[in-house]
Amino acid sequence: MSDLFWPGDHRAGPVMSEAAFLGALVAAENSWLATLVAVGLAPRTATTELGTLVGRTDLDAIAAGAERDGNPVTGLVGLLRSRAGVEAARWLHRGLTSQDVLDTALMLCLRDALAAVRRDLVSQARCLVELIETHRAAPMLTHTLTQPALPGTAGRKFAIWLTAVLDTGDTLDSVPAPAVSAGGAAGTLAATTELTGSAQTALQLVEQWAAALGLAPAAPWHTTRSPITRAGDALVGCCDAWGHIANDVAAGVRTGELAESSGGGSSTMPHKNNPVLTVLLRRAALTAPPLGATLHAASAASVDERADGGWHAEWATVATLARRTVVAGSQATDLLTGLQVNSPRAAANQAAAQGIYDEQQTMSTLAEKPPAADYLGATEALIDIAVRRARQYLKETS
Amino acid sequence: MSDLFWPGDHRAGPVMSEAAFLGALVAAENSWLATLVAVGLAPRTATTELGTLVGRTDLDAIAAGAERDGNPVTGLVGLLRSRAGVEAARWLHRGLTSQDVLDTALMLCLRDALAAVRRDLVSQARCLVELIETHRAAPMLTHTLTQPALPGTAGRKFAIWLTAVLDTGDTLDSVPAPAVSAGGAAGTLAATTELTGSAQTALQLVEQWAAALGLAPAAPWHTTRSPITRAGDALVGCCDAWGHIANDVAAGVRTGELAESSGGGSSTMPHKNNPVLTVLLRRAALTAPPLGATLHAASAASVDERADGGWHAEWATVATLARRTVVAGSQATDLLTGLQVNSPRAAANQAAAQGIYDEQQTMSTLAEKPPAADYLGATEALIDIAVRRARQYLKETS
Amino acid sequence: MSDLFWPGDHRAGPVMSEAAFLGALVAAENSWLATLVAVGLAPRTATTELGTLVGRTDLDAIAAGAERDGNPVTGLVGLLRSRAGVEAARWLHRGLTSQDVLDTALMLCLRDALAAVRRDLVSQARCLVELIETHRAAPMLTHTLTQPALPGTAGRKFAIWLTAVLDTGDTLDSVPAPAVSAGGAAGTLAATTELTGSAQTALQLVEQWAAALGLAPAAPWHTTRSPITRAGDALVGCCDAWGHIANDVAAGVRTGELAESSGGGSSTMPHKNNPVLTVLLRRAALTAPPLGATLHAASAASVDERADGGWHAEWATVATLARRTVVAGSQATDLLTGLQVNSPRAAANQAAAQGIYDEQQTMSTLAEKPPAADYLGATEALIDIAVRRARQYLKETS
Amino acid sequence: MSDLFWPGDHRAGPVMSEAAFLGALVAAENSWLATLVAVGLAPRTATTELGTLVGRTDLDAIAAGAERDGNPVTGLVGLLRSRAGVEAARWLHRGLTSQDVLDTALMLCLRDALAAVRRDLVSQARCLVELIETHRAAPMLTHTLTQPALPGTAGRKFAIWLTAVLDTGDTLDSVPAPAVSAGGAAGTLAATTELTGSAQTALQLVEQWAAALGLAPAAPWHTTRSPITRAGDALVGCCDAWGHIANDVAAGVRTGELAESSGGGSSTMPHKNNPVLTVLLRRAALTAPPLGATLHAASAASVDERADGGWHAEWATVATLARRTVVAGSQATDLLTGLQVNSPRAAANQAAAQGIYDEQQTMSTLAEKPPAADYLGATEALIDIAVRRARQYLKETS
Repeated sequence: MSDLFWPGDHRAGPVMSEAAFLGALVAAENSWLATLVAVGLAPRTATTELGTLVGRTDLDAIAAGAERDGNPVTGLVGLLRSRAGVEAARWLHRGLTSQDVLDTALMLCLRDALAAVRRDLVSQARCLVELIETHRAAPMLTHTLTQPALPGTAGRKFAIWLTAVLDTGDTLDSVPAPAVSAGGAAGTLAATTELTGSAQTALQLVEQWAAALGLAPAAPWHTTRSPITRAGDALVGCCDAWGHIANDVAAGVRTGELAESSGGGSSTMPHKNNPVLTVLLRRAALTAPPLGATLHAASAASVDERADGGWHAEWATVATLARRTVVAGSQATDLLTGLQVNSPRAAANQAAAQGIYDEQQTMSTLAEKPPAADYLGATEALIDIAVRRARQYLKETS
Repeated sequence: MSDLFWPGDHRAGPVMSEAAFLGALVAAENSWLATLVAVGLAPRTATTELGTLVGRTDLDAIAAGAERDGNPVTGLVGLLRSRAGVEAARWLHRGLTSQDVLDTALMLCLRDALAAVRRDLVSQARCLVELIETHRAAPMLTHTLTQPALPGTAGRKFAIWLTAVLDTGDTLDSVPAPAVSAGGAAGTLAATTELTGSAQTALQLVEQWAAALGLAPAAPWHTTRSPITRAGDALVGCCDAWGHIANDVAAGVRTGELAESSGGGSSTMPHKNNPVLTVLLRRAALTAPPLGATLHAASAASVDERADGGWHAEWATVATLARRTVVAGSQATDLLTGLQVNSPRAAANQAAAQGIYDEQQTMSTLAEKPPAADYLGATEALIDIAVRRARQYLKETS
Repeated sequence: MSDLFWPGDHRAGPVMSEAAFLGALVAAENSWLATLVAVGLAPRTATTELGTLVGRTDLDAIAAGAERDGNPVTGLVGLLRSRAGVEAARWLHRGLTSQDVLDTALMLCLRDALAAVRRDLVSQARCLVELIETHRAAPMLTHTLTQPALPGTAGRKFAIWLTAVLDTGDTLDSVPAPAVSAGGAAGTLAATTELTGSAQTALQLVEQWAAALGLAPAAPWHTTRSPITRAGDALVGCCDAWGHIANDVAAGVRTGELAESSGGGSSTMPHKNNPVLTVLLRRAALTAPPLGATLHAASAASVDERADGGWHAEWATVATLARRTVVAGSQATDLLTGLQVNSPRAAANQAAAQGIYDEQQTMSTLAEKPPAADYLGATEALIDIAVRRARQYLKETS
Repeated sequence: MSDLFWPGDHRAGPVMSEAAFLGALVAAENSWLATLVAVGLAPRTATTELGTLVGRTDLDAIAAGAERDGNPVTGLVGLLRSRAGVEAARWLHRGLTSQDVLDTALMLCLRDALAAVRRDLVSQARCLVELIETHRAAPMLTHTLTQPALPGTAGRKFAIWLTAVLDTGDTLDSVPAPAVSAGGAAGTLAATTELTGSAQTALQLVEQWAAALGLAPAAPWHTTRSPITRAGDALVGCCDAWGHIANDVAAGVRTGELAESSGGGSSTMPHKNNPVLTVLLRRAALTAPPLGATLHAASAASVDERADGGWHAEWATVATLARRTVVAGSQATDLLTGLQVNSPRAAANQAAAQGIYDEQQTMSTLAEKPPAADYLGATEALIDIAVRRARQYLKETS
């Protein structure tokens, strides 16, 4: 797993890879067949571990064959049937439609991606609490619109990052739990109902399937795609937060106040120590929003009982977005974990700044009392608020 | 309020208009000044109703002057000071920074926009329940990938739309409550703390201000912009849902199964009866996702204690997105309220479709039993699920 | 003309304003009527200056009425007919369809916007040549990936900006000349052919109309929208270039090497001198690409002989993009014209940089000769190339 | 070459694949080394065919290693040096920087992609001329805003598509020829100048390198990225045109007037004949515009002498966009080549349409003469214009 066009891609390992997607497609079919057997619709002789019939070596053929029907499921089902026993071949996929299997597989992959992202957010929250503890009171000049503003502290800077991470965690937690897709050809569960003889039984069968896969049950959502856009928006939100942090690191690296633990080299300039993780995070943040927008455009292109292109636009888009977010999450964790803070430099920069106490003078004159000893305002209280919120988040997610 | 480039714009009335924004900026300053007086920081003689000092006639001058400082607040404050009494002039805005006022005003406008959208979602849910009751069992052919698929009903079609609307309602409800922004120049509440003499008092003052404005209190979020992106994503999600419905209406209008209550005319073809609301909703759905993406890109451009462009990119973007969504919400309500269903035509179209019972034959053979009397599967149960969910939503939002 | 949500908007004056659009709609109708009279189709008694019949005070009513038919033309035509004499009322708009008039009006407005942008590119090219002449050899450290790289000069920095501006000029010049849209209801010129009695005469009439408006003639392009996307892409390219320059200024402002001639103030911090134009240009660059993407999405939504939403999505989008680009062009000119270069600071920063001659050492060792006196490479030659290209551009556009 | 998330991906074969990119990176280095030898800078003993030293089996290691330095070039150079002879190892890459090699390799891949797209545009133009010849006068109803408008012909419909294809061809031809990137570490050609002893010789060396690679020479463009955005916009424009055609096919498939030569099957409904190519083209058109926007956002993020993330965001984006456009081009050619036109159905649909001659009645009354025999207006003349343009295009590109 790697991508020559996207340095760092290997960090995501199998998450949302083509192989994982194929595995998830097979897992969805496998679990459905097992459910058909479990409820007595299909005979016990249909029992088969479908995962043993298809593997990575089939990937290219299935992918290339996917164009014939517009999606890989029909070809996969054909391949499974050709390799399974008679009863399994007869029963597998019965009741489902391609979209059920594909959407459910996407959700299985997405669940893993979301979990990986959440793990990194937790690590980052923990790391930022530590950074705050270590550098809480260290002077670090604030800037607005690129210019020196007021005195500040490293602790407050890290508390802002922590708030960004926690906001992102909240957004991620607001995403509805990944759910199965089961509607049959026209989203009416007609085939499954025909097989089971009753709509209620058909709905129960879907619930059993969902439970077996560890997904939530759901009414058919073939053309109501907020399960995809909600997840997509949350992933974009993660990249936003890391992009923001990377911007701050880039600014801090320019002034020498911050550094990555081990920067990248140059192919020709031996002295360079480039903030590579920072740069790659900024890259991720630049490319994520249009991917999220594509998922919305695809959702908005829903029509009939299965969309004529909108649905198909989602697969690669959500896979790319999810995988890149997983990569960025891991890079952001490493960036924060290894962050070097040059406190003497930061202190010197703040000491050299002009006019950063002028506002205080205005305020103390207005309030008709002498200026306070510092001009950090509610910095300590605001840091406390962020840290308390982090501890709560860490407790809830552990 | 109207926009020659965006037919239907007048539907939003003052919501998220320039006038409303100016009003909200003044309201934010006014409420802050009142709070300063209320807590005894500013003298009673500073009491002034700032809303009486500035009005729509000042709009152009303030807007044009906004370039000098990069935002309209500094100019507005100057204008207010020039027109207020001495004590009010001395005290107004003290403790705040431009971004506090501008973000808070945006949130006030956004709150009104979200409320308008929510009202329309409620109307739509109610209307769709009625459409379902009226046309529940009327035959209406399903299509997948543009082609006839299985038999269906109008009730199921409307239940899908209802689900889309309810999903959107859930998304909207997951958006954090609009909150004040109060951080002072560098997000540390330094000025307010200097004035009040204590960080705790400064934080309490922010809470009082929030309460007076009917917004949530919040830690400073100058560079953590998920309050904007969360709202933006939800608004885009609304447009997605209405775009989806409009696509279905457009398809139904092509086949004669659906019609708008009163279509638009042609400047030259007297026979035309154009599905204008449908077309305008599709328009909104095409333009919303890139606006949402812009908000994410802006959020990801956060840096330092105030961004050097990212923040400024949000204002017009969120205003446009919110206003268009309000317009689209109203249009969607009208579209659904006036929707004409040509049931005989729909029944005839379904009756003429080829092969739509073939799948049933396959299933009944597999199940070794005669085909059921219809092939609508769990249609009724799925409609019930959607309607129950709608009733719950209507109960909770009423 | 101003926009409270977009500081600087007043710079565009009437260009691509609602008033200008209304004027262009009327101008298109007026010119068509005059052409009908000129060729003898309509009687001389139909001669009317339509521009005297409708004005800014009608703007709101026309805009609000535009929703009924989905576009403002039908309402405008109705208004004109109600105010014109009998023969003018009978003949105006005959042969055209709403889309013809609206697209032609958009092109008239776009032509003015492109011209304004081109004027600013020319000013910028001229200004940059002057900046190069003034600061050509002044030392200015280069950076890659935020880090000091090799020695450089201010002249080279400005030559890069100049190249960006000239590339943009080339892109703009590659945009097909704005053309009329004349296809009639279904893009077949059926009505005009019916009126004139011959297709050739109908086509000639379109050419006369185009000549009268100062636009290019064109085959109907109701659903082939590259005239819009090509212009849109070029406008986005302009914003890219100015965004890039603004990024460099922002970086230079951080190090003190560059400054705007007069920065913006803070509502609370008296010492601030904010690089406002820089910030507002970065804003424009953040919001332009999604607008360009919207135009492509709209173009790709073309269908039938008039699109059901794609077309409608273009109007506000291209207007916003064009107007913002005009504003940004003017701001970029001012930024460059007033740019302050702190050469001593830049020289000191370069002198303090570590390791920036290490690469030279490697190369001279490899070449087995002593290092050259400087390590500026082809800087002078590259500046000459850029300046020569600028002089050619200035000659061709003057 | 295939992609389970993007059915049809195999059509692009090696074009813009990771393997092709690696090959292009090596080709760029190889050609540079050969040029150094040819001009006598490097000794003849450095002569090496670098392509024999690195191959596809190195792909994963190079990709994974790319994160260390933020791009794959440094790792590749290290690998090449470890496997080359002493003199080749000493001299390869000397004078270049990573960005030179990577950008040049991207341009080599892009050149192949653009050529593939151009070949398909030519095939499509040829095919559409044939479709016009075959179906020129066959009745085919026009629609505007989804509704029947005026009488039309299949020939006119195909002429519109032809115009879309030719516009796209023009856009593609306006893209500047892919050029080498050669600026060295800071875009000043410092290292090459140091090696050659003169800026002019350095610039000549770049020209020789460009000639050897079959690319255009160019001044360094490390941070002036219109070479990427211009190509990207043209590729998006192609997808727009095919999306438009696909929309028309989808509409025609709904009415039975058009069909794909061999549609895709359903995993469960035996009667389905899905317009798969149509659906996959619509997919491509939905996803392309945001990729183009990403390239603009990346371009606008240019800063310093090498961007801190903007540059890195381009690689995967332009590769994805280019590859998908190549796939879509091939699919569009197949769609058009195999298009089935059901003329009797189309004629019947037109005959059944209401009111489509009403406009003619209005016009003939106005013109005070009896209605013409048909109401096709300038249809024939407009078809001729499109076909003439196509013949010219085919002549120029053959």
